[in-house]
Amino acid sequence: MNKVRVAVFGASGYAGEELLRILLRHPNAEITAVTSRKNAGEPVSNVFPRYTGLNLNFCAPDVAEIVKKCDAAILALPHGLAAEYAVPLLEAGIKVFDISADFRLRSTAKYKEYYKVDHPAPALLSRAVYGLPERYREQLRSADLVACAGCYPTSIILPSTAILAAGIASTKGIVAASCSGVSGAGRKVDLPYIFPECNENVKAYGVVAHRHLPEIEQELAVAAGVDEIAMNFIPHLVPMNRGINSTILFDAKPGVTLEDVGKALDDAYGKEQFVRILPAKRTCETKYVFMTNTCEIGYNLDPHTGKIIITSAIDNLTKGAAGQAVQCMNIRFGLDEAAGLL
Amino acid sequence: MNKVRVAVFGASGYAGEELLRILLRHPNAEITAVTSRKNAGEPVSNVFPRYTGLNLNFCAPDVAEIVKKCDAAILALPHGLAAEYAVPLLEAGIKVFDISADFRLRSTAKYKEYYKVDHPAPALLSRAVYGLPERYREQLRSADLVACAGCYPTSIILPSTAILAAGIASTKGIVAASCSGVSGAGRKVDLPYIFPECNENVKAYGVVAHRHLPEIEQELAVAAGVDEIAMNFIPHLVPMNRGINSTILFDAKPGVTLEDVGKALDDAYGKEQFVRILPAKRTCETKYVFMTNTCEIGYNLDPHTGKIIITSAIDNLTKGAAGQAVQCMNIRFGLDEAAGLL
Amino acid sequence: MNKVRVAVFGASGYAGEELLRILLRHPNAEITAVTSRKNAGEPVSNVFPRYTGLNLNFCAPDVAEIVKKCDAAILALPHGLAAEYAVPLLEAGIKVFDISADFRLRSTAKYKEYYKVDHPAPALLSRAVYGLPERYREQLRSADLVACAGCYPTSIILPSTAILAAGIASTKGIVAASCSGVSGAGRKVDLPYIFPECNENVKAYGVVAHRHLPEIEQELAVAAGVDEIAMNFIPHLVPMNRGINSTILFDAKPGVTLEDVGKALDDAYGKEQFVRILPAKRTCETKYVFMTNTCEIGYNLDPHTGKIIITSAIDNLTKGAAGQAVQCMNIRFGLDEAAGLL
Amino acid sequence: MNKVRVAVFGASGYAGEELLRILLRHPNAEITAVTSRKNAGEPVSNVFPRYTGLNLNFCAPDVAEIVKKCDAAILALPHGLAAEYAVPLLEAGIKVFDISADFRLRSTAKYKEYYKVDHPAPALLSRAVYGLPERYREQLRSADLVACAGCYPTSIILPSTAILAAGIASTKGIVAASCSGVSGAGRKVDLPYIFPECNENVKAYGVVAHRHLPEIEQELAVAAGVDEIAMNFIPHLVPMNRGINSTILFDAKPGVTLEDVGKALDDAYGKEQFVRILPAKRTCETKYVFMTNTCEIGYNLDPHTGKIIITSAIDNLTKGAAGQAVQCMNIRFGLDEAAGLL
Repeated sequence: MNKVRVAVFGASGYAGEELLRILLRHPNAEITAVTSRKNAGEPVSNVFPRYTGLNLNFCAPDVAEIVKKCDAAILALPHGLAAEYAVPLLEAGIKVFDISADFRLRSTAKYKEYYKVDHPAPALLSRAVYGLPERYREQLRSADLVACAGCYPTSIILPSTAILAAGIASTKGIVAASCSGVSGAGRKVDLPYIFPECNENVKAYGVVAHRHLPEIEQELAVAAGVDEIAMNFIPHLVPMNRGINSTILFDAKPGVTLEDVGKALDDAYGKEQFVRILPAKRTCETKYVFMTNTCEIGYNLDPHTGKIIITSAIDNLTKGAAGQAVQCMNIRFGLDEAAGLL
Repeated sequence: MNKVRVAVFGASGYAGEELLRILLRHPNAEITAVTSRKNAGEPVSNVFPRYTGLNLNFCAPDVAEIVKKCDAAILALPHGLAAEYAVPLLEAGIKVFDISADFRLRSTAKYKEYYKVDHPAPALLSRAVYGLPERYREQLRSADLVACAGCYPTSIILPSTAILAAGIASTKGIVAASCSGVSGAGRKVDLPYIFPECNENVKAYGVVAHRHLPEIEQELAVAAGVDEIAMNFIPHLVPMNRGINSTILFDAKPGVTLEDVGKALDDAYGKEQFVRILPAKRTCETKYVFMTNTCEIGYNLDPHTGKIIITSAIDNLTKGAAGQAVQCMNIRFGLDEAAGLL
Repeated sequence: MNKVRVAVFGASGYAGEELLRILLRHPNAEITAVTSRKNAGEPVSNVFPRYTGLNLNFCAPDVAEIVKKCDAAILALPHGLAAEYAVPLLEAGIKVFDISADFRLRSTAKYKEYYKVDHPAPALLSRAVYGLPERYREQLRSADLVACAGCYPTSIILPSTAILAAGIASTKGIVAASCSGVSGAGRKVDLPYIFPECNENVKAYGVVAHRHLPEIEQELAVAAGVDEIAMNFIPHLVPMNRGINSTILFDAKPGVTLEDVGKALDDAYGKEQFVRILPAKRTCETKYVFMTNTCEIGYNLDPHTGKIIITSAIDNLTKGAAGQAVQCMNIRFGLDEAAGLL
Repeated sequence: MNKVRVAVFGASGYAGEELLRILLRHPNAEITAVTSRKNAGEPVSNVFPRYTGLNLNFCAPDVAEIVKKCDAAILALPHGLAAEYAVPLLEAGIKVFDISADFRLRSTAKYKEYYKVDHPAPALLSRAVYGLPERYREQLRSADLVACAGCYPTSIILPSTAILAAGIASTKGIVAASCSGVSGAGRKVDLPYIFPECNENVKAYGVVAHRHLPEIEQELAVAAGVDEIAMNFIPHLVPMNRGINSTILFDAKPGVTLEDVGKALDDAYGKEQFVRILPAKRTCETKYVFMTNTCEIGYNLDPHTGKIIITSAIDNLTKGAAGQAVQCMNIRFGLDEAAGLL
C-alpha cells in the first residue's frame, strides 16, 4: 500500500515537533512537506537538533506547490490562519486535520464571542467533523475537514460525555479544574512564559471565559442530548513541560452508585486502546501518560456531597494535539488507528 | 520588654526549618529549645547547613526540662504526638501553638473518622482556639492552646468565610480545587516523593475525604451560621517546593454582583496586613506570596453559570504553617502581630 | 527469524522501566521474564501504570526457571548482586548484558578500592567485554558477558577516546565535569532524593573518588595506549529527571587546530548512527538527546589556554543504561544494531 | 543617624527586585527612587505584585531630578548604559554601585575584546573599586564608584584568590566549571529562556570566551601577584531559578596538604560573616545559600592527580548581585556591613 503523504503546516512549534516525532516512525505515512514561514529553506535540524542528519527542510507554506505532493495536511497553525489555509487545501482535494480551534465550534457566534473576530471560513463549518475519535469515529472515516479536539477539551470531554450520555449526572453545576504544563501555551516567547516566571509557581487563569470552554460545553451538550450546557472550567498553569490533569465534578443523579459510574465509563471506552480506566477510587497522574496517546481516567463518588469525581490525564502534545491528529488521519485513510502511536 | 522564650518541638522538618528562619530574626522572641528525637545533641547546622555558626543544638523533647525555660511552645509534630506533648506543656503553664491537626476539629467523632484513632486529649478541645488570626483574633489574645489552621484550609477558609459570612453565596455545592508544592507533604522519605516521581507530574489525591476537609467544612459552617456544610475539596500535588494555589467556586445568591463579592472580601480583610485582595477579575500566583505570610485573594463572577470564583495563594510553610503560628503567638503575647514576619 | 527471548532482572527501577519501553517495541526481541523480588507475582502495571493492559507479571529471580525461556538476560541489578546472577546464567549458556558496574573494571584491586568489597566473581572478568559498541563492536559480536558502560562514563569515554586515540591531546590534566538528572541515582528512596531537597538545588558530590572514575580512566588509557591515566571527574546533581551533560578539557598538543579536533571525532564516529557531532564551537544540550540512544558531542579549542573543550550529552537511562544494553544485545545476536532504538 | 537615601536604576529586572527586597527591610537605608523606562509612573506593585500596598512608583531615569534626593545610586542596568548614567551621577557627588560589568575590567582593551564596543567612560576606570568586600574592603570605604563583582566571578574569585594568595597552587591550568539558575540571564524574554526550553535541560555555553572570564582572570592575577592568568571557565545553565554552584580545580604545589588548603581559606575568610567554609571534603549545595548573602566554600585535595578541588555556592541574585551591592554600600557609608542582609 502506498504511504499517506502528509504535509505539516506550522511545523516549528511544539505540536509541530511532536507531529514530526510521530510521523517519522509511522509505518504508513511519509512527510512530504513541513512548512515554517520563519525557517523556510532551513533544515529541520536547525530548529530541532535531535533531527540532525534527517534530510528534510522547512519550506514556505506555498499551498499550490504543496498540494501536488500530499494527501493529507495537518495544520499546526494559529487560529484564523488555519482556516485561511484550509480553504485552498480542501479545494485541491487534500484531507485537512486542523489542530487549531478554527473548526471546532459549530456556532459562528460563539467563535466571535471567544476569538473576537468573525469566523474566517464559515462555509466550511458544516463539513467539519470534531476530531475526537472515541466520540466521532464513524464520521471521521469520511471526513474531509477534521477539527481536532483541543488539549484541555480532550481531557474533559472524554470522561464527561460518557457520564452524561449514560444519564447518571445532572447537566447543571459541572465544574472542571485542570492543570497544564507550559508547552500548552505553545512555543510562545513572552515574559509570563520565561523559566523564572513559571518555575516554582502555579497560577489559575481564564477562570471565567477560557477559549476552550465553549468547545467543552458544545460537546457535553451533544452527549447529554440537551441544547446547552453552562459549566465552569478553571485552568491552571503548573511548572512542568507536558501533561494535563483534569478533575471534573458532577452532581450524581439520585441512586447512582460508584459501580454505575465505572460502568458508564467502561461502556463508553472499555474497548478503546487509547483510553485507560483506572480501578475505582484511584486518581490519575500525568507521568503515566507522558509522551503517549492515552487518556487515563479515574472515578470516584463522594457520598457526602453526591458528587461524581472524575480525574483524567493526557499528554497535551500527544493525545491533546499531534497524536490525536494522527489518530484521526489513520481513521480517515483506513489505516490501523494506532499506527505510529504506540 | 523581655523576649518571649520559645521552644520548637519537632524542629527538623520543613515547618521547623521555617520556624527557625522566622524566629531567628524575630525582634521580640528568642529560641530556647529546638527538639528532635533523631538529632538530639547535634547542632542545628547539621540538619540545616545554612545555620552553620549558629550556637544552637537540637535537644531531646524532655518536657520537664524545657518548660523551665520557655513561655511558648510551637509544636511541629505529627498529629497524635502533638496532643501528647500539649498536655504536660499546658499543665506547666506554657502557651501552646500546635501546627498539627490535633486540636483543629471540635468534634472527636470527626477526628476519629478522618484520623482513624480516638482523639488523644479530648478534654483539651474546649480550650483550643483555631489559629487563624483574621477570623479569631480576639479569642487568640487569651488562648492557652492554639490549633493553628492547616495549609490548604488557610487558603480556602480565609476567602470562603468572607463570602459566606456576607451571605452572598449558597452553602451548598461549594467546590475547592487546590495545588500544593511538595513540601506540603513534609520532609517525608517515601517513593512517591522522590524527585523523579514528582517532577514533570501532577496528580490529584484524596479527592473524597482528605483530612483537611472536615476542618474546612467546620470553619465554613461557623462563618455561614449553619450546622453543617458538605463541600468538595480536591487537592493536587504539583512539581514545586512551596506554595498553595486554591480555586473555590460558590453559587452566588440571586442578584449578587461582582462588586458585592469585592465588598465582602474588603469588609472582611481590607485592613488585614497579611491578606492582599487583588483587583476584580485577576487571579493569584503562588510566586507573589513565596516566603511571605500573605494570603493573596482574587475574585470573579461568572455570569453564565452564576458562580463566584475565588482564587487564593499562600506559602504553605509560612502562612500555612510556621508564619501563622508566629502570628498567633505574637497576638497572644501582645506583640506587634507582624513581628518577625515582614 | 525467531525473536530473541529476553529476561530482565531487576525490572522495577528506572533502568528496568526504560528497558521495558524499548523492548516492548523491539521488532526482533520479546520479553519472557521480568524479575522483581519485591513485586513478584504482581502485574508490571502495578509499578508502571502506563502498562495497564499489558499481560506481563513480575516474577521472582529464579534463575533455574528463567534460563529455560530466555536467550539473553539484561541485569539491572545493584552491583554485587549482578555478579551473583551472572554466574549461573552464563553457565546455562545465556548471554548476559550487565548494566551494573560488576564487570567493567579489569582490575579486581580497583574494584575493591572503589566498591569496598572483594570482587564477587573474578573468574568471569576475562570473559567480559566492555559494552560500548562504538569502541568494542567487534568484540561484542561474540561476547557472552557484556559489561555495559556506565552513564557518566559513556558521556565522557566516547568523545575522550577519540581525542586520545588521535594523539592530539595530553593524557595528563584531563578534567571532566558532568551534570546528571536525579534518575541517575536510581529509584532510591532516601532523604537527599526527595523532591524538595533536589529541586532548586545543584550540588557537586564524589569529587575525588566517584565510582565511575576508574572505569573512565581505564578506557581512556586503553585508547591512549598508556598504562594509566589519572584525571579528575566532577559530577553534579541537577534538578531534572533525565540527562547527562559532560564537559571535558584536555591540553591540546602543540600545533593542534580546531579542525584536527573535528577530524578526530569524525574519524572515530562519523559513521555511527548513535553519535551526533555538532558543528565546531557549538555546545550540547541534554534536551536534544532526551529519550534517545544518541550521544551528542560538541567541540571547541581555547586558543588562550590551549585546551580542547568537549561537551557531550546523553540520556542517562537510554544511551547511559537501557538503550546501550539493547544496542549491545542487537550486535551480539546479529540484529540491526538500531532495532528498537529509533 | 539619617538613613542613606538610595536610588535604584533599572529596578524592574530580577536584580532590581532583589534590591527592593533587601532595601525595604534595611534599617539604615531608604529607597528614594526606582527607575524603569518602561514602567515609569506605574506603582512598583504592577511589576512585583508582592509589593501591593507599597507606596512607591517607578520613575523615569531622570538623573538631574534623582540626584537631588539620593546619596547612593545602585545601577542594575545593562552594560554600556550603566556607564552612561554613572558619569552624571558621580559628577553630582552621588556614590555609585554598579551591578553591570562596565567598571570591572581595568583594561579597556579587554572590555572591547569581550563586549565588542569601546569602553563608554574610560576616564572613570581608575576611580572604580572592585566590589568584592572580602577582597577590597579598605578601598571600598572611600570609593565613589564601585564595580560590583559579577555573579559567576564572585563564586570563583572568592575561593580562588585565597588559594592563590597563599601560594599553594599553580597559576596555570586552573579550570572552573559553574552551574547557574536561569535568573542569571536576567528577566530576558527570548526563546532559549522560555520554560519548556530550559526545564529538563542542561547546557554548557560560552565555553571559550564568556564575558565573565577576563574579570575572573584579572582578579586571580592580582591575588597571585602575577601579570596575567589564563584559565578556563565553563558555565552551564540548569533548570532552577536561583543559585550558582562552581567547582574550581588547581594544581597543588608539591607538598601541599589538605590542611594547607583549609588554612588558606580560613586565613582569608575565617572571620568573614558572609563566607562559610565547610569542613574538609564536603561539597556545596546551592539550597544552603538560597536567598542569602553567603558564599559557601568546600575544599578537597585529590591525591591521585594532585588537584585542589574547591566547590562554592552563592545565590546569584543576592551575593552575586543585589546583596553584594548593598554590602558594598554599607561599607562605604560606614554602616554595619550586614545591615539589611541577615
